[in-house]
Amino acid sequence: MVEISIDEMEKARKRIEGKVHRTPVIQCEAINKIAGTTVHFKCDHLQKTGSFKSRGAINAVLCLNKEKGDKCKGVVTYSGGNHGQALAWAALQCDIPCCVAVFSNTPQLKKDAMIGYKAELVYSGNTLGEIELKYQETKAELGYDAVEPFNDVGVINGHASCAAEILEQVPEADAVFVAVGGGGLASAIAMYVGEKRPDIKVYIVEPEAKQLKPYLEEGNLPDHDTINTIADGIRVLKVGDLCKEIFCKYSKETIISVTEDEIRKALALIWTRTKQRVEPTAAVSLAGLLKLEDKPKNPVVILCGGNVDLSFVP
Amino acid sequence: MVEISIDEMEKARKRIEGKVHRTPVIQCEAINKIAGTTVHFKCDHLQKTGSFKSRGAINAVLCLNKEKGDKCKGVVTYSGGNHGQALAWAALQCDIPCCVAVFSNTPQLKKDAMIGYKAELVYSGNTLGEIELKYQETKAELGYDAVEPFNDVGVINGHASCAAEILEQVPEADAVFVAVGGGGLASAIAMYVGEKRPDIKVYIVEPEAKQLKPYLEEGNLPDHDTINTIADGIRVLKVGDLCKEIFCKYSKETIISVTEDEIRKALALIWTRTKQRVEPTAAVSLAGLLKLEDKPKNPVVILCGGNVDLSFVP
Repeated sequence: MVEISIDEMEKARKRIEGKVHRTPVIQCEAINKIAGTTVHFKCDHLQKTGSFKSRGAINAVLCLNKEKGDKCKGVVTYSGGNHGQALAWAALQCDIPCCVAVFSNTPQLKKDAMIGYKAELVYSGNTLGEIELKYQETKAELGYDAVEPFNDVGVINGHASCAAEILEQVPEADAVFVAVGGGGLASAIAMYVGEKRPDIKVYIVEPEAKQLKPYLEEGNLPDHDTINTIADGIRVLKVGDLCKEIFCKYSKETIISVTEDEIRKALALIWTRTKQRVEPTAAVSLAGLLKLEDKPKNPVVILCGGNVDLSFVP
Repeated sequence: MVEISIDEMEKARKRIEGKVHRTPVIQCEAINKIAGTTVHFKCDHLQKTGSFKSRGAINAVLCLNKEKGDKCKGVVTYSGGNHGQALAWAALQCDIPCCVAVFSNTPQLKKDAMIGYKAELVYSGNTLGEIELKYQETKAELGYDAVEPFNDVGVINGHASCAAEILEQVPEADAVFVAVGGGGLASAIAMYVGEKRPDIKVYIVEPEAKQLKPYLEEGNLPDHDTINTIADGIRVLKVGDLCKEIFCKYSKETIISVTEDEIRKALALIWTRTKQRVEPTAAVSLAGLLKLEDKPKNPVVILCGGNVDLSFVP
């Protein structure tokens, strides 16, 4: 059984090389002036399917195929957006079927993207409980393998390729800022950077309603399963158990909470100054940097996705 | 007196080297599929001040300074947007004063950008006639040198650096698509590419209301001085006299007219697929390529600017 480890992360990186982009790192003088430091934007909104999710999805599918000898029968997941697109794309690359449980109210644009990658969609109600149930039923019915959105070993190992690229592209980095939702990307970055370059601080940035720190410390969670935030990619309240373990080890003291207004302002800055049309979730990391009083000298800010409706205005 | 020539264009390129960006060329698989060819996007929306205008503005200011021995007294222009920002920025780089005549209804965001580059603004009414009058009055009063938005030798020679980069970055190019307003960029591209690589077709793309072809052929112009188009950077009806001469020589047979709907669709494609937040004018060139029946194999599409209000939706 594959585990989450630096060794497996390195293997994953080799496995997916050439299948995903090595995304560029850009700078923007106007934002450097505003932040009072040199901000290195890691552009994962320019990744295949428009988000970092393709890294983990393609690694997970390739690992499943290997496990099964040649090809697995199919993959199944649940997703309101980017993970569903990424998994559908990854399955299409490997020529295996993919089924995604989506919310009834998932935007048509996102459903169309999944269908464009030949995924079959099944529809659930609009709560996390309902979509997880639909997903479990579908999985049992089809006999496909599961690739969960964040709490998945193959996914987390694949996402770490983003951190590996950052260490090569910005060797002078002294901090990395990453948004947290279910925790797949953030835990991969925290662990990989924490082990390979412990001198670099990894800041985990959350919308303030998430309250990750008390959860890591006391394990208590509110009753609801999502939070209300403009950052629609990270509305899930709970981080995955695999991710939680990593955060407890590496990130207890480096969590930053940002307000909705701070996210909106950071998004407006990215749109107007860098001309990059990222999604709201991608602005959370910059909001975290801007909030920090003592700015690092060479912060890396991960722009995690660019899938945003045409009509959206910050 | 400096003229418009390939030799002066080469000199301009050396003069402004290191002062403006060599902007990247990007591709997008999704758009390649839709266009049925390999589209090379030249990203001048990532140029200093967010548009190609900085190329010509800085060259014009540097030439004026040289002419005057060391420094000119100041520069003056009229502009509803990008040229004003570019000239203000260029003047600030050279530490000389800049005055821009703007429309009373120029968006505050654009006025703020010019003020941010230390320009002095003077306000006119909202027609081209009124702004040109205000500009002439201001020029006489201050004794500053004029740097007109498009009908200026230094500006056109400076803009040609965009074409020179394209020829180096995409040697396999067989066509270039560029939007036309006053004609500064389009004429620079048409002439430079026409002389250096006559095997490459340069397509001049206009909003259909412009009617450039009959104007070049018969010299007739409608009464109004602007056209009604979503592409706010190219609302001026008439091309500059210097530009007209170049178009007559190089571009009479390669003008493409696109509808407003075609511009909107191209803009939506660029936003959602490339994740580049360009301004509406920058989508005109792609609209031209998409309209062309026989697609070139390696078209270069110039994304000319990225200065668009936050609230704008295609």
